[in-house]
Amino acid sequence: MESLLVIKIGGNIIDDETKLSDFLGRFAALDGKKIVIHGGGKLATQLATQLGLPQTMVNGRRITDEESLKVVTMVYAGYINKNIVAQLQGMGCNATGCSGADGNLILAHKRVVADVDYGFAGDVDAVNSNGFRVLLDAGNTPVIAPITHNGKGQLLNTNADTIAQEIAQAMSVHYTTTLVYAFEKPGVLEDVNDETSLVPMLTPSLYERLKGERKIFEGMLPKLDNAFAALQRGVNRVIIGQAEQLAALVNGQTGTHITNEE
Amino acid sequence: MESLLVIKIGGNIIDDETKLSDFLGRFAALDGKKIVIHGGGKLATQLATQLGLPQTMVNGRRITDEESLKVVTMVYAGYINKNIVAQLQGMGCNATGCSGADGNLILAHKRVVADVDYGFAGDVDAVNSNGFRVLLDAGNTPVIAPITHNGKGQLLNTNADTIAQEIAQAMSVHYTTTLVYAFEKPGVLEDVNDETSLVPMLTPSLYERLKGERKIFEGMLPKLDNAFAALQRGVNRVIIGQAEQLAALVNGQTGTHITNEE
Repeated sequence: MESLLVIKIGGNIIDDETKLSDFLGRFAALDGKKIVIHGGGKLATQLATQLGLPQTMVNGRRITDEESLKVVTMVYAGYINKNIVAQLQGMGCNATGCSGADGNLILAHKRVVADVDYGFAGDVDAVNSNGFRVLLDAGNTPVIAPITHNGKGQLLNTNADTIAQEIAQAMSVHYTTTLVYAFEKPGVLEDVNDETSLVPMLTPSLYERLKGERKIFEGMLPKLDNAFAALQRGVNRVIIGQAEQLAALVNGQTGTHITNEE
Repeated sequence: MESLLVIKIGGNIIDDETKLSDFLGRFAALDGKKIVIHGGGKLATQLATQLGLPQTMVNGRRITDEESLKVVTMVYAGYINKNIVAQLQGMGCNATGCSGADGNLILAHKRVVADVDYGFAGDVDAVNSNGFRVLLDAGNTPVIAPITHNGKGQLLNTNADTIAQEIAQAMSVHYTTTLVYAFEKPGVLEDVNDETSLVPMLTPSLYERLKGERKIFEGMLPKLDNAFAALQRGVNRVIIGQAEQLAALVNGQTGTHITNEE
């Protein structure tokens, strides 16, 4: 099967213009078929604050009321997405920016209220892998904003890490798929304050041990849960590491490689 | 050749939620291949005002400084575009929303400063008709926001009427193309205050006479200049009329039909 790279770029990179354009240069230079999923960074919260809409975060996730949904749709699917697309076009990469509503690429449902009412937050039901294939086969590089829809006219705010995982899983039926979480750290660290304590290979048993020793940072847990789930559902490789080292991450030379094999 | 409808929907319809969703229902029901281009309405100016960015309009066009470009990108390519796409998806129309940067669909250059410096305003250089064909052939309905790019990383604010004309012209090489300007009036009126004074057929000589008699409203002049230019450049039919009567406009039963034949 042909290879496909599915790369999630984290919010801290999005927030820094220089880091973002450096990353996009590295991304544009990667050979072969590829998809990038971007988070939103701090811009949505900044805009909401400017508009007098205080934002509430619970467990690191936004409570998305109607006005907040407007803001994240504008910032993620408008400002950030189109700026990334224009920059990639300027670098010779034929990028096409999409939300999950475009071409019905990502169908979701409004999260069922359990302990917390997250409002217009979407949990993914289906990824339209044929829609992605049409774009890829036409030489396009999809740039995905973390906004989905319910198929009935409602947009939904959806976690970008999860979207990356779901896209990688769905595409792994058609491609040998590598999922990369690119962010500001070199990967999973044994000691969060020591960047040389990189864990090059994370197995389920090591993950359990590091969790037990409380050595894995809170924000990493859902990312790593996503990573192990992706491997179980057909994704060939999952790598977590520094956006500045994108080519080396993809080539297996650095970062943390997640594996289900002990 | 296969038929294609290129439909521009005006700002006054966009500004009214009920009118917009009524229009989208009519648009979704149209048979065959189709593209819709939307303007921005008053939402961008409202958001700019909320953010303390006063907007300057000259000859009905926005002076787009850097902060205003952010706002129009968020509102046009984000909020409005994705809401239209989600609604159309809910109506069974497989819409894909794009700016001119996406898939390099519409290349433009920053308007050269003559009397007025319009800032980040784009004049169209090229429409990527193959990019549109890939979408149409895959069963997608493109929904185009009036934002273009210069191919070097810069987004540009571009008049939606002009984008519609340029898309229709470029597509007329591949399709029998009808260009429809759908807005709040029944079409070109002999008396702007009398909606029964519709001009059913506008020839160049009648246009000259009505302009001479100052019977054609100021905002209509660029739209009509675009319409005649489109016919000269290969578009088969150009129709201007009321968004509420979309099917009748397309079928030739109402509205003003522009013709280059006397």
